[in-house]
Amino acid sequence: MPSPLLAPLFGSTAMEAVFSDRETIAAMLRFEAALAAVEAEAGVIPKAAVTSIAKACAGGPIDPAALAAAAGVAGNTAIPLVKMLTAKVAAADAEAAKWVHYGATSQDVMDSGLVLQLKAAFDVLDADLARAAKAAARLARIYRDTPMAGRTWLQQALPITFGLKMAGVLDALMRHRERLGEARPRVLVLQLGGAAGTLASLGDKGPEVADRLATALGLAFADTPWHGHRDRILEAAALFAGIAVTCGKLARDVALLMQTEVGEVMEPAAPGRGGSSTMPHKRNPMLSATILGAANLAPQLLAAVAAGGAGEHERFTGGWQAEWLALPELARLAGGALHRAAELLEGLEVRPERMRANLGLTDGLLMAEAVQMALAPALGRLAAHDLIEAACRKAVAEGRGLLDVLAEDSVIAGAASRDELAGLLDPARYLGAAGEFVDRVLARYAGM
Amino acid sequence: MPSPLLAPLFGSTAMEAVFSDRETIAAMLRFEAALAAVEAEAGVIPKAAVTSIAKACAGGPIDPAALAAAAGVAGNTAIPLVKMLTAKVAAADAEAAKWVHYGATSQDVMDSGLVLQLKAAFDVLDADLARAAKAAARLARIYRDTPMAGRTWLQQALPITFGLKMAGVLDALMRHRERLGEARPRVLVLQLGGAAGTLASLGDKGPEVADRLATALGLAFADTPWHGHRDRILEAAALFAGIAVTCGKLARDVALLMQTEVGEVMEPAAPGRGGSSTMPHKRNPMLSATILGAANLAPQLLAAVAAGGAGEHERFTGGWQAEWLALPELARLAGGALHRAAELLEGLEVRPERMRANLGLTDGLLMAEAVQMALAPALGRLAAHDLIEAACRKAVAEGRGLLDVLAEDSVIAGAASRDELAGLLDPARYLGAAGEFVDRVLARYAGM
Amino acid sequence: MPSPLLAPLFGSTAMEAVFSDRETIAAMLRFEAALAAVEAEAGVIPKAAVTSIAKACAGGPIDPAALAAAAGVAGNTAIPLVKMLTAKVAAADAEAAKWVHYGATSQDVMDSGLVLQLKAAFDVLDADLARAAKAAARLARIYRDTPMAGRTWLQQALPITFGLKMAGVLDALMRHRERLGEARPRVLVLQLGGAAGTLASLGDKGPEVADRLATALGLAFADTPWHGHRDRILEAAALFAGIAVTCGKLARDVALLMQTEVGEVMEPAAPGRGGSSTMPHKRNPMLSATILGAANLAPQLLAAVAAGGAGEHERFTGGWQAEWLALPELARLAGGALHRAAELLEGLEVRPERMRANLGLTDGLLMAEAVQMALAPALGRLAAHDLIEAACRKAVAEGRGLLDVLAEDSVIAGAASRDELAGLLDPARYLGAAGEFVDRVLARYAGM
Amino acid sequence: MPSPLLAPLFGSTAMEAVFSDRETIAAMLRFEAALAAVEAEAGVIPKAAVTSIAKACAGGPIDPAALAAAAGVAGNTAIPLVKMLTAKVAAADAEAAKWVHYGATSQDVMDSGLVLQLKAAFDVLDADLARAAKAAARLARIYRDTPMAGRTWLQQALPITFGLKMAGVLDALMRHRERLGEARPRVLVLQLGGAAGTLASLGDKGPEVADRLATALGLAFADTPWHGHRDRILEAAALFAGIAVTCGKLARDVALLMQTEVGEVMEPAAPGRGGSSTMPHKRNPMLSATILGAANLAPQLLAAVAAGGAGEHERFTGGWQAEWLALPELARLAGGALHRAAELLEGLEVRPERMRANLGLTDGLLMAEAVQMALAPALGRLAAHDLIEAACRKAVAEGRGLLDVLAEDSVIAGAASRDELAGLLDPARYLGAAGEFVDRVLARYAGM
Repeated sequence: MPSPLLAPLFGSTAMEAVFSDRETIAAMLRFEAALAAVEAEAGVIPKAAVTSIAKACAGGPIDPAALAAAAGVAGNTAIPLVKMLTAKVAAADAEAAKWVHYGATSQDVMDSGLVLQLKAAFDVLDADLARAAKAAARLARIYRDTPMAGRTWLQQALPITFGLKMAGVLDALMRHRERLGEARPRVLVLQLGGAAGTLASLGDKGPEVADRLATALGLAFADTPWHGHRDRILEAAALFAGIAVTCGKLARDVALLMQTEVGEVMEPAAPGRGGSSTMPHKRNPMLSATILGAANLAPQLLAAVAAGGAGEHERFTGGWQAEWLALPELARLAGGALHRAAELLEGLEVRPERMRANLGLTDGLLMAEAVQMALAPALGRLAAHDLIEAACRKAVAEGRGLLDVLAEDSVIAGAASRDELAGLLDPARYLGAAGEFVDRVLARYAGM
Repeated sequence: MPSPLLAPLFGSTAMEAVFSDRETIAAMLRFEAALAAVEAEAGVIPKAAVTSIAKACAGGPIDPAALAAAAGVAGNTAIPLVKMLTAKVAAADAEAAKWVHYGATSQDVMDSGLVLQLKAAFDVLDADLARAAKAAARLARIYRDTPMAGRTWLQQALPITFGLKMAGVLDALMRHRERLGEARPRVLVLQLGGAAGTLASLGDKGPEVADRLATALGLAFADTPWHGHRDRILEAAALFAGIAVTCGKLARDVALLMQTEVGEVMEPAAPGRGGSSTMPHKRNPMLSATILGAANLAPQLLAAVAAGGAGEHERFTGGWQAEWLALPELARLAGGALHRAAELLEGLEVRPERMRANLGLTDGLLMAEAVQMALAPALGRLAAHDLIEAACRKAVAEGRGLLDVLAEDSVIAGAASRDELAGLLDPARYLGAAGEFVDRVLARYAGM
Repeated sequence: MPSPLLAPLFGSTAMEAVFSDRETIAAMLRFEAALAAVEAEAGVIPKAAVTSIAKACAGGPIDPAALAAAAGVAGNTAIPLVKMLTAKVAAADAEAAKWVHYGATSQDVMDSGLVLQLKAAFDVLDADLARAAKAAARLARIYRDTPMAGRTWLQQALPITFGLKMAGVLDALMRHRERLGEARPRVLVLQLGGAAGTLASLGDKGPEVADRLATALGLAFADTPWHGHRDRILEAAALFAGIAVTCGKLARDVALLMQTEVGEVMEPAAPGRGGSSTMPHKRNPMLSATILGAANLAPQLLAAVAAGGAGEHERFTGGWQAEWLALPELARLAGGALHRAAELLEGLEVRPERMRANLGLTDGLLMAEAVQMALAPALGRLAAHDLIEAACRKAVAEGRGLLDVLAEDSVIAGAASRDELAGLLDPARYLGAAGEFVDRVLARYAGM
Repeated sequence: MPSPLLAPLFGSTAMEAVFSDRETIAAMLRFEAALAAVEAEAGVIPKAAVTSIAKACAGGPIDPAALAAAAGVAGNTAIPLVKMLTAKVAAADAEAAKWVHYGATSQDVMDSGLVLQLKAAFDVLDADLARAAKAAARLARIYRDTPMAGRTWLQQALPITFGLKMAGVLDALMRHRERLGEARPRVLVLQLGGAAGTLASLGDKGPEVADRLATALGLAFADTPWHGHRDRILEAAALFAGIAVTCGKLARDVALLMQTEVGEVMEPAAPGRGGSSTMPHKRNPMLSATILGAANLAPQLLAAVAAGGAGEHERFTGGWQAEWLALPELARLAGGALHRAAELLEGLEVRPERMRANLGLTDGLLMAEAVQMALAPALGRLAAHDLIEAACRKAVAEGRGLLDVLAEDSVIAGAASRDELAGLLDPARYLGAAGEFVDRVLARYAGM
């Protein structure tokens, strides 16, 4: 997110809240409060210190602007945060201040704070995936049998149904939910290692404190600190990018289907969106364009997170810093794209009549395969093929409809009446397993 | 892979075989042979055609160079492959030739062929992950208690053990195996949709043929064709990139530890590798550099696959074509990097004496935290902190060892003898839970 | 380029020749031959050695497969190349063999060989840019006044001309030529530094040898060796990617304009390309799809080159290796995309009648702005705006043409007759400065 | 930039000001004010409207938060900006309000506003490039003859000088200034095209208005509107990324040279930066790590800008939106990285004694090439080579210094005394053309 100016356009309220500066700070403070609490339980720090630390963590917030300025000097956000928190505690309880952040290192609080935000981000995404899936399922059900042109290489190919298109979206959305679920135990994991990953600062209490802290924060604790291996973070990044791209695929189709010359769907109308008073015929795909913007940038942020993972020793010099920038931005773009995709699916205007009209644009040529297959038993497969092909060429050359050309061919006419031929040219009768595919996907959706 | 010239450097034998042009063609032919067989079983094509088609698919191979030239005109590899295969069948059995590729479309054979290659790639990666994990486990076990400097921001921080470092690698390798396993049912899935995804060309036999074909090829069949949703492919790409990056992290550490000034590990020696006759002191980290080259490029290829996923309608115009280039290259780079990482781990020369010597470079300063924590009970935490900090400053200013400075301080001397202080400055006694972390990871490894 | 199988599809003959393995080797051998020659001139090596070295460099080529295998062990291509070359020289002249590669290091021959290839690549690109520019200029000239719909957000906006669209392409192509020219003196620069960049191995003859060598190879010599600063390489990469993307923009428009529902241009027909015997109505944008595939991947390869530039000390460990893979592939994709773009422009079928027909799809609404501006003097700007807006709404609501609605409004009818209104609704009369913009661009083109 | 929290860490004051939301809005308002002014001059709008529009543009600013919220609905920032501006004008002068943004489209004001920001960004970068170059030149001059180890593949190779290293940085910085200069006439170009690029809304006054407006804003006007061709923007992005990566290369070297085991340079000390009270021996490379973070992300943002360039027709759906996010972020990262690089160079602590000590780490082996070349005239080249090589092996095997081993060899001793051998092993005497290279670069710098 380059600036607050564009945040409402590309973000979503829920995900913006997860990655607001305020929440970034709050997540780190939750870590510090819980750390003090479990260290006291484990006998590492005095029980008396806990309340003061907890109070300082919960109380009047750390000023983001002051923290930002200090981070600009210190090189990360944790050093000044701990300093400011310690000062806050000290103001009320000098003794307790000695035990703030005890035994932890900057990366512990930054990584674990991030994981707490990722947990919230997973919840937000899962909810919006469910919402989008519900809307896609509804469209798949309603338009299960609504024919439209399937398009390959941006050319009309054969009829499909709009329900099938929506089932494809639903199918992908369900896979993303599945992946999110599988990733949780690997990604939502506490980081606590102390200065170099041994927790030596906690004497022999390191693992106990770590396990207690993980429990207190609702996270898992890994078998070993993972600060130097960012594959967990990459896994989250890949999920985020994948979601953004799936939304982008939907948006691409919507934007293409909204073209003046196609007009088969329209984005949900909203006051002030996409219309143009000077160009009354326009209905700009504003949601889709915004989603596609996110889908364009998300792969790059994913690459930045991945590239940052081949870092140095026990704490990185460059790769980690890039992650600070790239990962939250990626999560926010994914959150925004998904939120808009859900809105798009919920309010999509579908125009079956335009779909039907566009199916007729080639005046039957689109259905040549169907005619050929239907006549094969009577005429022989090869003869049928040759006759139909010749008829197609003639129709193109003379600018006539295929039905007329077919009907005037005596061999074909011998095998099928004009009415029968017209039936064969009906896209709605050549939809193969589209309906069954929709049903399969909907059945899986129903079982989720 | 830009050219055969660099393939042996960046690839591995096993993965190069999976993605050789020959195998790319063979995988597509396997699809065509199996398609004919199951279509005959389902009564879609004559049983008589099966043998001829199978024979042509299995027989003398399609010439890659001729296919390449034809693909350059046709726009993809499937169109000329089917044409060449059909001609081969026709030469022996004109009737059977009519049933080649029956009801399928180019993307069906290309995507399903790719999935067959991905299946083999998963197997290759899993085997090399197991091999690398075994070697990492061995190192973690042997060097469980071998102290070395933990380094953060490229500065010595506190002692860790080399075993802990290796346990971190092992931990990540095991996670990649886990992810590969979870991804299989989602990624290794047949694509069969016909011209636009409805399988209309197979009449009412579409789903039956698809299910039979999936079984025949050892794949799953999805609820619906997935040509227009590339998240499965992105999932594979993310796994590949993740593996390459984890190998890159290992290689980064090895290259840094091999620095002339550090010298704590050495890549396995091999005739003609990394040495220099004119510079006899050099031992270049050639394996690591190659792995890091792959780890640098892999994130970009991942981004290309991701970006390609927001494509148009039922077959993409641009994104899919980029995938043809990026995905096999990514798999090959990951395969090569992992293969080299396994070799690196298996033959790594570890130099505990240099690790120990480097731990002494700061003449005790590295251990200041340890002394402070040990003296806190006797002196009080705050007093201990202030005394140690002053001693450190003095040691730096006067260029003396910390032990001498500590021992001459009367308050400190009252709390600990010189021998005791020397013991506190021993890195081997301040390793925290390093051993326990290693054990945890090894236990999980043992249970895999 | 992942494999020879796809090279004819994505590459061009001329650029494939520049980056063939054979030429990669030949460029390095040209460096070695010239190095020996100028070192002899400078009195660094015996004159007697030159002929034998030159003969070995020029003679029967180094076997790429053997070199590739050896590079897989040695870690780069230069070490085995020098070894194989030395053996070749030694077979004829043992004394001369001592002076092969004298004073140079692996990176000198690899970087300078690459620069020689880049020089050839610049020439190839410049020639194809000129060819594409010529074709674009021709289209701009022919269709200077041919109206078509300008489309924003994939919606028809206002009329433009096809000539204006082509002038935009021409304009960008000319900028790329300009950039190539400016980049030459910075990019086409010899690298010669010896083992660490001081040329100490050449005693006090280093700069002299370097200057002579640069001259001999037709390159510049920089003020200092540049092996550790890859901004020159990045500059080339950015040019390549920029060219690929400009071709991609053209291809995107062509693919969209070829849509069944639009049909305003067609890719040049070629036997076996883009057609479909089973779907006779299809004309797939195969050239465009291939170009777009290249344009999708090129930005990622550019990123890999850029990211590799922040490398270590006097020779990199990872970033440089990635460059070996990414840069030639990028050049080849750019070369292929540009070659196809030239072909596309040269053979493009333009269908002014479909452009005209599509301009009529909104039945006048597209021209609302034109009517409003024309009536403003008579009716007042605000009144004109309100009247036209109301008419547009009415036309949409009632599904009627705008002309009819306008003509039946008494106020409007008072200001303009039906014929006049029809004229105002003619897109060809509302093209603003399109013609002048085309002329400006063509004038610059004429002056190049 | 993901959030204000990290802006002070990664940005620079000057560049943050250029791309602040406030300035983004101000640049667009400058466009609107100048547009009205020149349209009045050209007789397109009434002169009476100019003052009111100018006053509204200059006066109390548009509220960024309100604008952001409205942009979230409208799909871009221009639509609500124009609406809010129009309302402001209307409040004072209803007639003038009709002429706000007259004849322009959203992309005109957004692109041209961006170009105005790019112009300021070029100035900021040029100033900081000059500042960094000055500091690098100073270091190159001071340390022209200070030997240090040249390192290849992270191994000590041969001696170089620190001055040579700095000359390499200076050389690259000067190239970036050159590139910025060349790019200005291509990049700093007004965009004015109206709804679809023809300026039809301005009747026959389009080109005149455009030329006047360009002059008024201190920009060039291109031969044709360029909204659909983003190669100008890509050119800027490539410059920004290139600068960030060059800074990253410097930062990489600094971070490596600061390693505890190397210690040859130190980042400038600043209160609260990089130090650690609990680990007094540490001096973290905080500036370098931050620069490297930027250098890691910059290539990805460059890729996003490049990829976005292959967009649709006369206004893009996705690629342009991604550019809104990626380009300003890239500029800000480059600005921040360069600013920190200048600070780094200005305050770098250089430790020639540690450089010298590290040169001795291999106890002479590093200088084997020098000895061999010096003895060749006396012993014959081949004999010298073989003798030295054997001596090196012996020194390594027995763990002794090369001088001792050489001096005890009778043949070598016959050719050179121990003192002479010691001289040959002095790195300061084997620096080749390092000094001359430094002088060349400094001379070019002096002439800039």
